Amino acid sequence: MMLKLFYAPHTCSLASHVALEDAGAAYTTVRVDFSVNEQRSPEYLDINPKGRVPALVTDRGILTESPAMLAFIAQSFPQARLAPLDDPFAFAQVQAFNLCLCAKLHVAHAHRMRGHRWADDPVAIAEMQHKVPETVGASYDLIEREMLKGPWVMGASYTICDPYLFTFAQWLEADGVDRPLIPKVIEHRSRMSERSSVRKAIAEELHA
Amino acid sequence: MMLKLFYAPHTCSLASHVALEDAGAAYTTVRVDFSVNEQRSPEYLDINPKGRVPALVTDRGILTESPAMLAFIAQSFPQARLAPLDDPFAFAQVQAFNLCLCAKLHVAHAHRMRGHRWADDPVAIAEMQHKVPETVGASYDLIEREMLKGPWVMGASYTICDPYLFTFAQWLEADGVDRPLIPKVIEHRSRMSERSSVRKAIAEELHA
Repeated sequence: MMLKLFYAPHTCSLASHVALEDAGAAYTTVRVDFSVNEQRSPEYLDINPKGRVPALVTDRGILTESPAMLAFIAQSFPQARLAPLDDPFAFAQVQAFNLCLCAKLHVAHAHRMRGHRWADDPVAIAEMQHKVPETVGASYDLIEREMLKGPWVMGASYTICDPYLFTFAQWLEADGVDRPLIPKVIEHRSRMSERSSVRKAIAEELHA
Repeated sequence: MMLKLFYAPHTCSLASHVALEDAGAAYTTVRVDFSVNEQRSPEYLDINPKGRVPALVTDRGILTESPAMLAFIAQSFPQARLAPLDDPFAFAQVQAFNLCLCAKLHVAHAHRMRGHRWADDPVAIAEMQHKVPETVGASYDLIEREMLKGPWVMGASYTICDPYLFTFAQWLEADGVDRPLIPKVIEHRSRMSERSSVRKAIAEELHA
């Protein structure tokens, strides 16, 4: 199966990029240039009508939404053991963690740069930005206290939760989160940054 | 396996409730009383530290996040055929649809009643509310044009996408969405409301 990942640097597409590396998948990448709003071009909207990254072209069609793509990568490359595929409860825990990132942490983060999605008035958008350190911080607090088992998110086994958390952790300083409050998240970020899959994906995204 | 669902009426927990009925699962329900803020009580926070519904107690532990719970129900009761479990691509399509509901539609909807999550200033919160018909409407437009195949979301087969869409569709008038613009969604809602699983779950939630 040949796969093609549409990505943009500094977005959540990094998680799927790393997971494809972790899986040993055969894939190519296409950069979507957000600086010229390429994600809203007719050509890209044909690929992903939502006008966002990531999108993954497969020989069966196109997939979107990071947690769904991450589960797809894990299921398509079972030998890479990126999720507990034969255990519905453990798989649901993996998915619940990724959903918390997607629907809580990412949404809170998006109110910093993309408040225009939810309000038009610049004053309201500024108000949203003002609360981002608190809302993103609350998500990280929950992850630190309740979720991140260590050394990997789910404990001894590396899973598709790890590249997804690592991706958001790239932005935590910019989101105004205090590093000393979340030592396990910071340690996880360091551990991830040493993996060859992470180094390869980041190098390609930043130097392509 | 005995399951216990923590739910609140008029919330997204309805989707998991219907899916448990569809699956023929043995389960009990516990109502969380939002009118007295029971979801923030120490007792409930012990069950779900996120202070939200739904939460599903299993004999292995507690699961949260609707799309993860829906996939868990489908995988735990394979004979009910609530998802294409042996086809990673088709399963990812199911998950991508549910993620679009969770991370886009539900988030847009939440800015109507729960804007305080993302801003403190009442003027900013009112601004968010003002934009809800547009943002929720955009999600439904995408579902109507690109995603809902009919008669069920994924086409001929009923899946865990159906109770989840139905749940949000309960609120579309209150969200300010024009019904004539989304005839397929409205027809789907009618079709769902005639299912015995849906009738049973709603009756229990509203008359318990």
